[in-house]
Order: sequence, then structure tokens, then C-alpha cells
Amino acid sequence: MPYFDTASAAPLHPVARQALQAALDEGWADPARLYREGRRARLLLDAAREAAAEAVGCRADELVFTPSGTHAVHAGLAGALAGRRRVGGHLVVSAVEHSSVLHAAQAHAAAGGTVTEVPVDRFGAVSPVEYASSLTSTTAVACLQSANHEVGTVQPVAEVAEVCAAAGVPLLVDAAQSLGWGPVEGRWSVLAASAHKWGGPPGVGLLAVRKGVRFAPQGPADERESGRSPGFTNLPAVVAAAASLRAVRAEADAEAARLRVLVDRIRRRVARLVPDVEVVGHADRRLPHLVTFSCLYVDGESLLHGLDRAGYSVSSGSSCTSSTLTPSHVLRAMGVLSEGNVRVSLPRGTSAEEVNGFLEALPRAVAEVRAELGVPEALSATPPVAESVEVDALGLRCPQPVIELARAIGTVPVGGTVTVLSDDEVARLDIPAWCAMRGHDYLGETPRPLGSAYRVRRAV
Amino acid sequence: MPYFDTASAAPLHPVARQALQAALDEGWADPARLYREGRRARLLLDAAREAAAEAVGCRADELVFTPSGTHAVHAGLAGALAGRRRVGGHLVVSAVEHSSVLHAAQAHAAAGGTVTEVPVDRFGAVSPVEYASSLTSTTAVACLQSANHEVGTVQPVAEVAEVCAAAGVPLLVDAAQSLGWGPVEGRWSVLAASAHKWGGPPGVGLLAVRKGVRFAPQGPADERESGRSPGFTNLPAVVAAAASLRAVRAEADAEAARLRVLVDRIRRRVARLVPDVEVVGHADRRLPHLVTFSCLYVDGESLLHGLDRAGYSVSSGSSCTSSTLTPSHVLRAMGVLSEGNVRVSLPRGTSAEEVNGFLEALPRAVAEVRAELGVPEALSATPPVAESVEVDALGLRCPQPVIELARAIGTVPVGGTVTVLSDDEVARLDIPAWCAMRGHDYLGETPRPLGSAYRVRRAV
Repeated sequence: MPYFDTASAAPLHPVARQALQAALDEGWADPARLYREGRRARLLLDAAREAAAEAVGCRADELVFTPSGTHAVHAGLAGALAGRRRVGGHLVVSAVEHSSVLHAAQAHAAAGGTVTEVPVDRFGAVSPVEYASSLTSTTAVACLQSANHEVGTVQPVAEVAEVCAAAGVPLLVDAAQSLGWGPVEGRWSVLAASAHKWGGPPGVGLLAVRKGVRFAPQGPADERESGRSPGFTNLPAVVAAAASLRAVRAEADAEAARLRVLVDRIRRRVARLVPDVEVVGHADRRLPHLVTFSCLYVDGESLLHGLDRAGYSVSSGSSCTSSTLTPSHVLRAMGVLSEGNVRVSLPRGTSAEEVNGFLEALPRAVAEVRAELGVPEALSATPPVAESVEVDALGLRCPQPVIELARAIGTVPVGGTVTVLSDDEVARLDIPAWCAMRGHDYLGETPRPLGSAYRVRRAV
Repeated sequence: MPYFDTASAAPLHPVARQALQAALDEGWADPARLYREGRRARLLLDAAREAAAEAVGCRADELVFTPSGTHAVHAGLAGALAGRRRVGGHLVVSAVEHSSVLHAAQAHAAAGGTVTEVPVDRFGAVSPVEYASSLTSTTAVACLQSANHEVGTVQPVAEVAEVCAAAGVPLLVDAAQSLGWGPVEGRWSVLAASAHKWGGPPGVGLLAVRKGVRFAPQGPADERESGRSPGFTNLPAVVAAAASLRAVRAEADAEAARLRVLVDRIRRRVARLVPDVEVVGHADRRLPHLVTFSCLYVDGESLLHGLDRAGYSVSSGSSCTSSTLTPSHVLRAMGVLSEGNVRVSLPRGTSAEEVNGFLEALPRAVAEVRAELGVPEALSATPPVAESVEVDALGLRCPQPVIELARAIGTVPVGGTVTVLSDDEVARLDIPAWCAMRGHDYLGETPRPLGSAYRVRRAV
């Protein structure tokens, strides 16, 4: 039963499990205590910090352990912002950061700060030039992920770090998705990561703050972890996290090369095997184990259930799978289709057979969902009946508005227009994306008392 | 090699270890995901929440898991204060709260709030009447620990909760030290606890917020744990924490009765076996497994090392064992001796033989430290030489100023005075405490250009 959602969480690496077992015996005491159990715990903590710092590429006294990657991001951003309060309250983030960064940015804005979101291209990457133009004399901190968690696109961190260094702005890098594959290149100032993404246990994040970076920890004081991460240290998990990081790094290059072949196969074959599919993310500058695609006329939640029944655990950035009814902010920022979205992230050790099995199961699962929705019968060619038609899709949820549009486009001649009324938030993203995929002209959106009217001109 | 510092951290309970193992296999995935690994994780999380809520005595939807007891306190206090912002910014805490509470109170004060510390009696207990008098019309929140972590004194939580309820003020209870022994009685509003104190794994705290309590989570938004605890849930540890809480509760009454006998033995015998010792904390209203005493003319760190060499791991609230050079705020608030302080907290399963062994080793260890310091020769009776003497103890650290005082008291007649010059912060606590123990009159303190002058009149 292949699990292909390692970007969410990875099962515990065998080395992590061994280290955890040993540290539960040897490292349960308070490392601040003077007696032998405490001294033993202190030795384990020091060794774990050395190992993690080596993997990150920083000094041991620059690195602290936090209870999660989210805590590392929140504490890192809050401390860096406060450390530069005199410079100003301007924060720069990319539009495709992890929600932990964006939520911290929202909190900053709510507290009176200002936030600039740097847009990304259709592949999900920021441009260093555009990043540079967003920095001002009051920019306190800039944030950029090392690689995107939804589409796998690797960001130009080293170039952006240069741009930030030139402007004297510290760069915080969220390295959650990439740290297991290698250190983050470039002159970053603050780095956050999460152990359970590389096969370490949950309950451990890393926060590295380079010497010389102005940093003022926020929240109540606590003497542990250089005052940067309060609470009793989760030492057994920290030991396991450091041990597994070292272990996955030792095999990272070979495993990356192997998984890259499998991911390339998925990228190529999905486009051939499934009609009306869009593979998203950058073709080359990407994580080795992650690929994302979206399927037209498919409801993401139904597709996930279908794949789950077939034995494959994958994730989705479609709105229909979350409770918020909004599509993934990453796909929206990229301007790509979000309906029927599937993210495949292969764990280390994934075999070619497992990937081949997935490629067999996927077309069937997509076809089943489409059949339930009345696709493709609904899309069969019909003769044009009018120069322009209006489709009332109010109350219908993704992917129905796009299905209604696809059905209606055949009822107008080339040059004719279809107007779709929709109150589904996702239509704003998916109708233009559908036009781009199908070669039609998207004419724009007009607010209506209920929802919006989206106008499309048939071009082919 | 007996470990007698379970109030700091307890080794993992066997049930916790079993549950952790199982949950590492079954509960590593994201409980928010739709596939089978996610659903399995969700079931485990729901079951752990039910079990923990039952042990706490609240509804499952009132309880969230945090990464530590400290996080539970910080998040609970911040949320409760923000929820009552309109009422005012006044916070009431006892003077003997855990540092996590006091640090959060300091952060509140730094942000413009006001804080009242309710004093305690010589046994470390607050008085509900005094607590009531500290509540004002602008009091947003009140905090009280269920039992003190340094001296074991159980606080009158139910009575204080009534007083708070009458004033319409929510009471936050830090139940870290007591939750393994039983639920917190009374009408508390918010409760925080820490799993590694009851033999659960590190990395898990509990935060319970009663329905109807105004609560506004602070910090960046996060959809997990009802928005009250950000970051990926440490599910294996949460499962282990809940399982071990249930297990320790099942045996709590019997084990409490057994350990209470052993602690009573320590309380009685220490006073007989060790000259010049003060047992602190309440004799009856106390945790079953914890006893604290202070030894005159002893440096706490040396005593801890001596006991460690003899095979006993204990803790100390003496200044000489911390990096801060200030004595425990708990002992200071109680006004009791802090020098040579030893806290013994017995783990479940401690045998009578282990306790007897400790009672044999302790007098030897104390005698060794005193011999090194030149005690008791220094204290041998000398004929009075003057009506008043001044002792220069500047630059000397605890316990030296008190030893100098004890040596000098024989050099004045009854009715004569000894003035001790000291720049050691601890003298302010320990000189009056020594007077009380020895039956001399403490006349007060006068600031000097360097340190202070402490005046003592010989009375016996």
C-alpha cells in the first residue's frame, strides 16, 4: 500500500527509531541538572546539536531545537523582526510560502507591520530581480522557502540571499522541504526546518540564527535553548532527529538521482495517460521526489478517495479537499489549474513497481470520477446554437463550473462568448487556467450581486 | 543508583513506551489527511484526547495538546488574558508559581499589563482570603499552581477557584506537579499540565479551556488543535502521554499511600540525622512523593555532587547550584533557609531500601561538605570579646556569610550584636532564616556602598 505523501509527513527512518529508543533510556533527564542522568542528557543534547549544525552548515551555538518546524518559523520570524524593529516594520515574503510563514506574516500585519508578497511565475519560482525590487529602506526581514511544498519548485535562494545581503536585510529561509536533501546554499541569515519531513520524529524543528544577525526572542523568557525555544527539551526526539538527518544525508545524492527518474516518469506519463491534465511546477529546478498535476473536470476529494481505495496515499491542493473552500494559495499564486489537483511525494526507497502501479491506477481513478460527474458525455461536440450564451453555475462547486463552461463552449461558434456565473471562489483561478489549457481567450470577470460573471471567447 | 528527582523529569513509564512504539508505527501521518494513514492517525488522536480529557475531568473538545507544559502555560495565559482584554490588564499569580508562569507574567507586565503576586506562608501556601483581596475589577486572569514544584505544598485550589468565580475571574491552574496523582478539584477555568512529569514522554503538554471561558489564542493562526497550539501534532508522544496518564492514575492512590510513608520517614529522620537542618513545606497538605529540606553551613552544589557520588540524584533550590546566583524564588517567598537546599522527589516504585540508603548517605555527605568549609570547628564556643562586632563577608558566597555569622555570634554576649557585611544576594534570605532557626533576633538590613549590613542581636 504505497504512501506517496512524504511532503506531509514521513514514516520514522530506521536510524531515527534506533536513536529514539536509545535516547529514551539515556536521555530522559533534564540536561540542566548536575547529577549523572542530567550530565548524560547534556552530552546527548550537545552531540545532537553538533550533528544538526553540521548538516545545516552553521555553528552549533547558532542552532536551537524547537518543538516543530512551525515553531521554528514563528520564533525565527518574530525574533528577527523584533531584532530589526528600529529599521522598520516591513516584511517581504514570497506568495508561495508555507502557511506557517504566511500566518506569521498575517500576525505581523495585524500588529501594525506591513507585508509585501513577491509573486511567482507559472512554475512557482520567484525572480531575484523582482525580489530585490520589493526591498525598501524599512524592510526588516525577508523570507523565502528553499523549495515549494506543493509543487516542488526550488527557489533561487542563493541569488535572493545576495540581493538581501546587498540591501542589508536578513533572509529567513524555510528549509522544511529540502534540508533532508542537502544544505541550503547562499548567505541566509535565519533558517527553519522540521525533522518529521526527513524521517525524523515529530516534535522537533530546527532554528538556526547566524552570528551577527540581530535577533530578539519574543514571548516569555526561558533559559533553555539560548532563550529561543521555551519548554523542556524533547531530548529523545532531538537525538533521533539529528541521527536521522545524518543518515538521510549520507544517502541523499544517490536516492535523489533514483527518485528523480521515477518522478520524471510520472511527469511524462501522466500527461500521456490522463486526458486534460496539467503538470505543474518547474521541470528541472525542483525537489527530486515531488510532482504535482491537476486534472480537469475532476473533484479532488473524490479522486483522493479513489486513489486511496486503489491503495495510493497522495495529497491535494484542491479546494474541494479542505474545509476552507479556497484553493491552494500556491496554485493560485502560480495561476495554474487547481481542480483535480494531486501532489505525489515519494518516500525514500520507493520502487519503480510502486510508481508503475500508481500510473496504472491513476487513469482509472480519474475516469471514474469524471464518469460520476457526467464527463465526458457532457463535453461531446454539439453544434453552435447562439453567438453568446450565459451559464448559471451559481451554487455549484469545483469542478462543476468548469464542466459547465466546457459543455457550453461548443454551443457558440469560434469568436462567440460564454459567460459563466459562479459564486465558487475557485472559478476565479480555474476558469482562466482552463482557457489557457484549451486555447480560448479569457476576457475577464465582472462582479454580480451573487458571485461573478466570467467571460470567455471561443478561439478554437 | 536511585534517581530521586522525578519532579524535574520522570523516566518513561513502561505503558508510555509501549504506546509510543505502537503509535510510531500507526500514528506518524498527518491526522488531517484523507487517506488511510491519516484516518488511522486521526482515530489515535481522538482516542488520546478522550482519555486525557477524562483524566483531567473536562470535555474532549475543551482539551488540546501542546509541545510542553511550558507551552500550555504560555498559550493558556496569553489566550485567557486576551479573551478578557476588555475587562482589564491585571493578572494575579501566586509568588511561588513555576517559572513558566512567572516569566509569562513578566512578559505581560512588559507589554503594559499589571501583575500582583499573592504571598505565601512559611509552608508555601497561599491563603484564599488573601487571594480574594488581590482581585480587582480589572483583574483579567488569576493563576495558581495545584501543588508547588519545589516544596510539594498543595495549594487550596478549590477555595481559590470559588473566590475567583465569585469575582467573575477565570482561574488558570498549573497542574504540572499533581495531575498524575489525581484530577484538580474545583471550578478552574483553564488548566495546564506536562506529560513528562507523570512518566509520559517529553514533548507533550495539555491545555484545557472550559467552555464559556473567553479565550483568544495569540500568535500566528494555525488550524490544528482548535487554533490553540500551532505546529504538526506530535501524535506518537501524545498517544503515549494519554496512555501513561491513564496507567499512573490507576495505581495513583496505592502508590501515593506507599510513597507518603517513605517521605514521612525522610521528613522525620533528616531532622534527627543531620544537625542544623530545616525541613520546608507543609507537613500534611503536600504531594505524596516530594520533600525538601535545607542544611545550614552547606553549599548546595557540593552537597549535590557528594550525593551524586554516593549514587543519589536529587535537586536543589540553592543559589549555588544555578547560574543566576539567586536562590529559588519559592524559598525566598516562603522566607525559609535556602542554603544547602535539597529536593527529594521519589519516582513511583521507589523502595524503602533506597530511601534508607539515602538516609545513610545524607549525613555523611553533609558532614563532608561542612568539614571542607571548616565547620563545625569554626562554630566552636568562644568567650565573648566585645559588645558588638562587624564581620566583613564581602565577596564571600553562600553559605560563607552565614558561617561567618555563626562563628561571630559567640564572640558577643547575649544582648550583643553582630553586623555582617555581605554582597551575596542570598544573605538577605538566609541570615534572617538562620536567626529564626537559632533563636536570635534579626534587626534588619542597611544598604552600604558595597552590599548590605545585616544586624543580628544574640538572644540565647
